[in-house]
Amino acid sequence: MLPLIRLLPGRDRRVKAGHPWAFSNEIAMNAELRGMPAGSPVRLEGDDGVKHGVWHFNPHSLIAARVLDRSPEAVPDAAWYRARIARCLALRDRLLPSPHYRLVHAEADGMPGLIIDRHGDAVTVQANTAGMDAAMPHIVAALQELIAPRLIVARNDSPVRKLEGLEEGVAVLHGEGSTAHVAEGAIRFELDLTGGQKTGWFHDQRENRARVAALCNGASMLDAFCHTGGFGLAAAAAGARHVTLLDRSEPALVLATRTAQAHGLNQVESVRGDALEVLERWVNEGRRFEVVVADPPAFAKARKDEQPALRAYARLARLSAQLVAPGGILFMASCSHHVAPGPYADAVAHGIWRARREARLLFQGGAGVDHPVHPMLPESAYLKALMYALD
Amino acid sequence: MLPLIRLLPGRDRRVKAGHPWAFSNEIAMNAELRGMPAGSPVRLEGDDGVKHGVWHFNPHSLIAARVLDRSPEAVPDAAWYRARIARCLALRDRLLPSPHYRLVHAEADGMPGLIIDRHGDAVTVQANTAGMDAAMPHIVAALQELIAPRLIVARNDSPVRKLEGLEEGVAVLHGEGSTAHVAEGAIRFELDLTGGQKTGWFHDQRENRARVAALCNGASMLDAFCHTGGFGLAAAAAGARHVTLLDRSEPALVLATRTAQAHGLNQVESVRGDALEVLERWVNEGRRFEVVVADPPAFAKARKDEQPALRAYARLARLSAQLVAPGGILFMASCSHHVAPGPYADAVAHGIWRARREARLLFQGGAGVDHPVHPMLPESAYLKALMYALD
Repeated sequence: MLPLIRLLPGRDRRVKAGHPWAFSNEIAMNAELRGMPAGSPVRLEGDDGVKHGVWHFNPHSLIAARVLDRSPEAVPDAAWYRARIARCLALRDRLLPSPHYRLVHAEADGMPGLIIDRHGDAVTVQANTAGMDAAMPHIVAALQELIAPRLIVARNDSPVRKLEGLEEGVAVLHGEGSTAHVAEGAIRFELDLTGGQKTGWFHDQRENRARVAALCNGASMLDAFCHTGGFGLAAAAAGARHVTLLDRSEPALVLATRTAQAHGLNQVESVRGDALEVLERWVNEGRRFEVVVADPPAFAKARKDEQPALRAYARLARLSAQLVAPGGILFMASCSHHVAPGPYADAVAHGIWRARREARLLFQGGAGVDHPVHPMLPESAYLKALMYALD
Repeated sequence: MLPLIRLLPGRDRRVKAGHPWAFSNEIAMNAELRGMPAGSPVRLEGDDGVKHGVWHFNPHSLIAARVLDRSPEAVPDAAWYRARIARCLALRDRLLPSPHYRLVHAEADGMPGLIIDRHGDAVTVQANTAGMDAAMPHIVAALQELIAPRLIVARNDSPVRKLEGLEEGVAVLHGEGSTAHVAEGAIRFELDLTGGQKTGWFHDQRENRARVAALCNGASMLDAFCHTGGFGLAAAAAGARHVTLLDRSEPALVLATRTAQAHGLNQVESVRGDALEVLERWVNEGRRFEVVVADPPAFAKARKDEQPALRAYARLARLSAQLVAPGGILFMASCSHHVAPGPYADAVAHGIWRARREARLLFQGGAGVDHPVHPMLPESAYLKALMYALD
């Protein structure tokens, strides 16, 4: 029988309304609970005796409990994780044509704090809570049983682990090497699972890359903050006349260039530099592109960064819009958790206006279907994408 | 030279920031201006002499001026409308595979208050401002020159015309009859341009119909509030095992059934009734569908209706979720201008929770690319679509 923790009297409103978290000031703490290992599975009950199921408990975190299962009889053992991951696998295989996707997206997939990305026969795992960190043996066993990956890499280098009292680090849990491939549209992208950004590949922009590429036939295209070239190479494969990749990371550009060469995409050039500085220089030189993509890393790393980040997004939008040829397309994205969709869209609109360009917002959206959102956590929809036609 | 109107001192902030409207309390009114015909084109200047271009002016409306052209030399004559509509046409033909789309979407397309839908060789026009109502001869001439439609219908039965002091009514402006067709995916839908809802067809859900249909192969599917069967017939054509169309409108169901028969879609049945009542009955009978679509007409017709509308959306979500089979899909949409995306998503989440169903939000989005949004009018993105996978 799992240990029992209780909500404080009058503090059960959110949990009763279906929210997947309980905060530390909602829980009846005592010395015994404070001494429990971070990430223990527990049963959660209200002061009124209502059973709220099985949760992960971390006495040292502001988010003290995260729901695992609404059934109070659930036991989060190897079989439980296998069943949960199998359900995620079945859903992705129903929604997507090939095994390159986010397999587990944390709370939305019923496994709070757990991120698993699948790149064909290679998998990256990120545990952002003490509960999931402790459950890693069950999770790895489930992955081996269900998809037998050639390579499993733990990308536990996310700073949010600190909030849970966890160390940061990258480790190969199974297999050898660190290289993997993602097939997307006509391109096979090479990835570096231990050295690259995040979990190796930004599956979240899959549909947006296709959306932009569909407008690039015959066009000159700029992919600013290109990382390993996802948008730019998709555009090149879709018939872009010329593609400029721009990023500050030499290793990312090397991977992008190698992928371009492997596919005979000779219209792709790469430029290394600080994107905002290079864009400013090109504006001053009067350069123009028929399609511009600006998809930077998060400008806001914390809540207090929101206002500076919005100013930076407005500046990026101004520069990007100035580089768009008449009648061209501008695609902007933000992956900052701490910038909300409304203020982001307003900042971009302001930047476009400062560039004195009339614009139609053709599309606003987020991450693809393999990044589901928990219905009660709309703020976890971190990716904000905007596509404009400029006059 | 067009008449000149001025913004009040200190009241030019929004216009200077690029907003496409000026409110009546921002304009230096006088007896002469109050006597101008509603919808006259004027030049707008700030108290500081800054020229803000050419606007439509209505002295009797709260939204007193709407921008037409940022150039103070512009003349909104027949050639001007032809050029604007030609640009809309070029953009749609670049974005979409066939001539069935919203051709002009008001402010976002630089023609405030004007809605034009194209259904192949038939066109519906809706003028929601006095300025566009007065410009109708130019607009009809431009349409005849650019696409020479067989049929042009004025769908001026929108209640927002009252705010501009305009009469409501439906009229055939060119051609004979009232029937048209829309080709979407594998289906050719029959429309009634004078008798049906809105401008005859809901182009705004095109991408969402395809998104849902892609998940319907082999499934039992319910299309609640089906109108002429857009979602349900797309699902049937995509291989749904059985489709139930539900609507209160007999004429809409007759059109839907005729379309189903014309395409040999024998797995489609139609049920006439009040959708909320029928759904409640089916819940009590324990019926289940593998895919449920609930896309009702606007529940909130005015700002004051927002709270009752949110309660109605939550109830609809609860009933719809209860009808979804285990592992099935729920698609919900709201076209209420007066319900914001955040509260709508919260209401639906609450309804799903009350149905005691765990859900993943797979997609949240809006209208298609032929319904662009003005960057400064994000609230004009009226369509809110949510697609969930239920456990």
